[in-house]
Amino acid sequence: MAVPYKAPVKDIVFGYEVIDSYNVLNKISEFSDFSEDIVIPTMEECAKFSEEVLAPINAIGDQQGASIENGNVTMPEEFVDAYKKFIEAGWASISLPEEIGGGGMPITLSGGTLEILSTANLAFGLAPGLSAGAISAINFHGNQEQKDKFLPKLVSGEWTGTMNLSEPQSGSDLGTITTKAEKQDDGTYKVTGTKVWITFGEHNMTENIIHLVLAKVPGSPEGTKGISMFIVPKVMVNDDGSLGDNNNVSCISIEEKLGIHASPTCVMEYDGSVGYLVGEENRGLNYMFTMMNEARVWVGGQGLACASGALQGASQYARDRVQGRPVGMSKEDAKKSTIIDHADVRRMLITIKSYVDAMRYLMYDNQLMLDLEYFAEGELKEFGEERCGILTPITKAWISDLGVELSSIAIQVYGGMGYVEETGVAQYLRDSRIAPIYEGTNGIQALDLMFRKLPLDNGQAMQRLLADVNKVIDEMNEGGEVLSDMAQKLKVEVDRLSEVTLWLGSKMLEGELVDASAGATPYLKMFGQVLGGYYMGKAAILATKKLEETGDEYYNEKITLSKFYIEQLLPLASGYASSVTAGKDDLFNIKAESF
Amino acid sequence: MAVPYKAPVKDIVFGYEVIDSYNVLNKISEFSDFSEDIVIPTMEECAKFSEEVLAPINAIGDQQGASIENGNVTMPEEFVDAYKKFIEAGWASISLPEEIGGGGMPITLSGGTLEILSTANLAFGLAPGLSAGAISAINFHGNQEQKDKFLPKLVSGEWTGTMNLSEPQSGSDLGTITTKAEKQDDGTYKVTGTKVWITFGEHNMTENIIHLVLAKVPGSPEGTKGISMFIVPKVMVNDDGSLGDNNNVSCISIEEKLGIHASPTCVMEYDGSVGYLVGEENRGLNYMFTMMNEARVWVGGQGLACASGALQGASQYARDRVQGRPVGMSKEDAKKSTIIDHADVRRMLITIKSYVDAMRYLMYDNQLMLDLEYFAEGELKEFGEERCGILTPITKAWISDLGVELSSIAIQVYGGMGYVEETGVAQYLRDSRIAPIYEGTNGIQALDLMFRKLPLDNGQAMQRLLADVNKVIDEMNEGGEVLSDMAQKLKVEVDRLSEVTLWLGSKMLEGELVDASAGATPYLKMFGQVLGGYYMGKAAILATKKLEETGDEYYNEKITLSKFYIEQLLPLASGYASSVTAGKDDLFNIKAESF
Repeated sequence: MAVPYKAPVKDIVFGYEVIDSYNVLNKISEFSDFSEDIVIPTMEECAKFSEEVLAPINAIGDQQGASIENGNVTMPEEFVDAYKKFIEAGWASISLPEEIGGGGMPITLSGGTLEILSTANLAFGLAPGLSAGAISAINFHGNQEQKDKFLPKLVSGEWTGTMNLSEPQSGSDLGTITTKAEKQDDGTYKVTGTKVWITFGEHNMTENIIHLVLAKVPGSPEGTKGISMFIVPKVMVNDDGSLGDNNNVSCISIEEKLGIHASPTCVMEYDGSVGYLVGEENRGLNYMFTMMNEARVWVGGQGLACASGALQGASQYARDRVQGRPVGMSKEDAKKSTIIDHADVRRMLITIKSYVDAMRYLMYDNQLMLDLEYFAEGELKEFGEERCGILTPITKAWISDLGVELSSIAIQVYGGMGYVEETGVAQYLRDSRIAPIYEGTNGIQALDLMFRKLPLDNGQAMQRLLADVNKVIDEMNEGGEVLSDMAQKLKVEVDRLSEVTLWLGSKMLEGELVDASAGATPYLKMFGQVLGGYYMGKAAILATKKLEETGDEYYNEKITLSKFYIEQLLPLASGYASSVTAGKDDLFNIKAESF
Repeated sequence: MAVPYKAPVKDIVFGYEVIDSYNVLNKISEFSDFSEDIVIPTMEECAKFSEEVLAPINAIGDQQGASIENGNVTMPEEFVDAYKKFIEAGWASISLPEEIGGGGMPITLSGGTLEILSTANLAFGLAPGLSAGAISAINFHGNQEQKDKFLPKLVSGEWTGTMNLSEPQSGSDLGTITTKAEKQDDGTYKVTGTKVWITFGEHNMTENIIHLVLAKVPGSPEGTKGISMFIVPKVMVNDDGSLGDNNNVSCISIEEKLGIHASPTCVMEYDGSVGYLVGEENRGLNYMFTMMNEARVWVGGQGLACASGALQGASQYARDRVQGRPVGMSKEDAKKSTIIDHADVRRMLITIKSYVDAMRYLMYDNQLMLDLEYFAEGELKEFGEERCGILTPITKAWISDLGVELSSIAIQVYGGMGYVEETGVAQYLRDSRIAPIYEGTNGIQALDLMFRKLPLDNGQAMQRLLADVNKVIDEMNEGGEVLSDMAQKLKVEVDRLSEVTLWLGSKMLEGELVDASAGATPYLKMFGQVLGGYYMGKAAILATKKLEETGDEYYNEKITLSKFYIEQLLPLASGYASSVTAGKDDLFNIKAESF
């Protein structure tokens, strides 16, 4: 049986302090009184709900999954019930703007809640997660009539929303979509085409589903510049808000996937379905971009969530399982010991735990920058936009890759029991494996970092981030021996990162774009590893201060986690350096047929 | 649909040359005429059988799996048929000794055949694989009567065999088993107890199953010194070879696993079952050890097999899938291009392919050393034993870890299609995940390397291996610019490995065993990475020579693969160094409850 989930509320609350979220958010008028007094009870409530309602049905969702018959997708009964409770409790709307009926909380707050909800039940959380995307699209770009008609029930969660981008021939490259939207005399459009990978495209948890669909209006420009966005409800909505006829939207099939079985991944067929244009024609992709950062950070968070959940199971198993005699322990002591006393098991657990902390700080900081971008003004807004731009591909890719790797390490802690589905840890590996793929593959994130983010403000944006890392190093150098030892090690790695960054910059200036692109993925991995060190350095500074103030052993452990990360995990960063600067030649020196 | 499997026969044959297998084996009288004339047709035949019979049912086995009802385990029909064909073709016995009816081939030859068979169908291959263990146990340690009674039908494959070690409370630590074997007046024993993780413990592919069971005779010494080994047939065998009564052996349940679904993992109950003592009482664990190296190398091979299979699927997908415009390519060219033209996709494919080559050479060399240990004499035998001792934990752990990692990279090449079970690549990830766990977890392999292998001959055995690496570096330095550039990079890493090896040696001499054990896993990873460089260096030397002789572009590509490995993958080795020498303190500075 899987270990009952217990949300790591204390670690989450500490994370908000590491990134200095209160001071930063308080500079924004909407959040001038945002404080621990909001964070702590929110996380405690979210923990309670997730532990009691969502976590217990996670395995049920995995085993039963969603099923399809005659185009109807049926969710496990327990999910239908849990969804009702979820919207009743108001979790669907906590970080949505107040003016549309949401909780008006900063995005930063959703870092903790999304982690908790997703650890408890990743598949479940995808339904409201996708709804949030549809809500943002309508709220930012829809007209008043559309907002009035669709937002209230989307925000309350009575309806869910979906995002329809991909088609069989159009995955990463949306320029090639063929779904057609023909304008009618009444101003609506007839939408016709097939969309794939539609998360919760069809299900029986709500009576209506509002699809956001990218399509091309005949005669529009070729490629990505001719894409428009449409609202296509599953069931038509009358002017009085009541439901009308079905809208010729059907789910043809759902995918048999490695994981997230309780999240139906649908092939959707639109057959002359009524669609309402969002904003202007041919601006659809721009509208998508405005929501992209938030969604990408969220997907990174899914990696964090899986690793965090897998750690809980593995550490409980390691505390319980009596087996073997740890090196250096007497026979007598060994009788009372469990496998957590083995150095190698501890190494696995501390590896996961250190990374989880580093990932958490990065994600929260990324969301804090999103709040600045969305809600601050002037220089602060600009700074948020710039920093968010750099952090987002790293949050998405570095964390989601680690989610898979760390879930796999957790399986190893269990030994044979980890390979048995009953313990639940294998589900984390299977569920986590989607995150490096969707919302822009991690390879695309790496290209985004290199070709869009590295050149920001002629490379000055990147230099400002590296300068911030160096500022933390300076601070650590002033903080006593333990911190300054860490600072020294962090310095080595950030210098190496700065070197390869300059190399990449020069290649791009020389127009050697393929050489640069060949190093994109190792560059992102290296960057993530160093950023992790930056946040763990910040955490160590804060924990040192708190330890002095409180004497709480908890902070001593946080210092150890930072030390472990910086001494034992961070050095992997340099291992990527030669790959970053190796260029394209070897990659293309093998014929395609020879692979 | 999964890509039809095509065995990489040319790469396999090249592998046998890289490790100089013919010259080495020819020094053993039994194999004095072993040559490519045996290897090539064997691999071609094995390829044909695996491609036509085993690969097409791999997905069926995964989807249907084995099922249990009233203690009867039913295999998919296709597996029952395939097993018949498998034994008819003689694949069950090719590397077994001639005197018991086997093919009398060296173990080295089974490197290639096991890779091919396991890539085609990992779950299927576990049945004959476990039989081979039972056969060896009886052949090496059984008496003539036992050999006469059980070996012929095990060798022919008419019966399968199993190994019964673990019990619910005894996994990695066999000292705590409680299965009891009470001696009867007729010289047989009554075996009573529960065994877990029994691969193919019950199935309907053969009419009998011969279990090798570890149990304790009442009054025997405590711990591992009081373990005996018994032959316990599922169905009693009469003196004339005909089958008699059932032997009170039952399968209580089978595990629901992440992968290898067509390999039933059984909980076996022995209830006063008739057992025949193998060899002497209390020597059971020693007998197990004699087969352990071979089994561990084979499990490493399973990681290689999964990575190799996943690469085939991914590269075919990458050659077929039209999507996106590669950096630096014109719009016009991009229309004809597929995702294999993207540098990042190439990086993924070449990463898998380089590792697969390195893993293959390591595994074959390990098996070559096993042949020396088993079949050579004098110094050559001693050398084989020593080298095999060092290589085995690395082959098992480094390769099996990579099997998981590389299968996951292959999924990434597919994008969303990789997450869909239909394409078959996710099965490689799921199947491969068992290999780091069974046959001694990879953590145990790391401890074996550190505490049993590093001290061999006072550390001289390890020094001799490192000297061999340096010898290859010298040779590369004489081989022209491309090779000498690689040599320089390999030198950096082997020197760093030598340094940490000395540090570990000194810690062990000082009795700081826990500090040493804390670095065991990163040490093994680092060692594997460097050994990979050593073999890729050897491959580059050979390929350079062959390229000059033949002008075949194939060898140029082999040089590129070596160059890529040494320049871009090998530097990860140094990234582990600080972990190896960090000691135990941080690991134990976190309270067990705090994880």
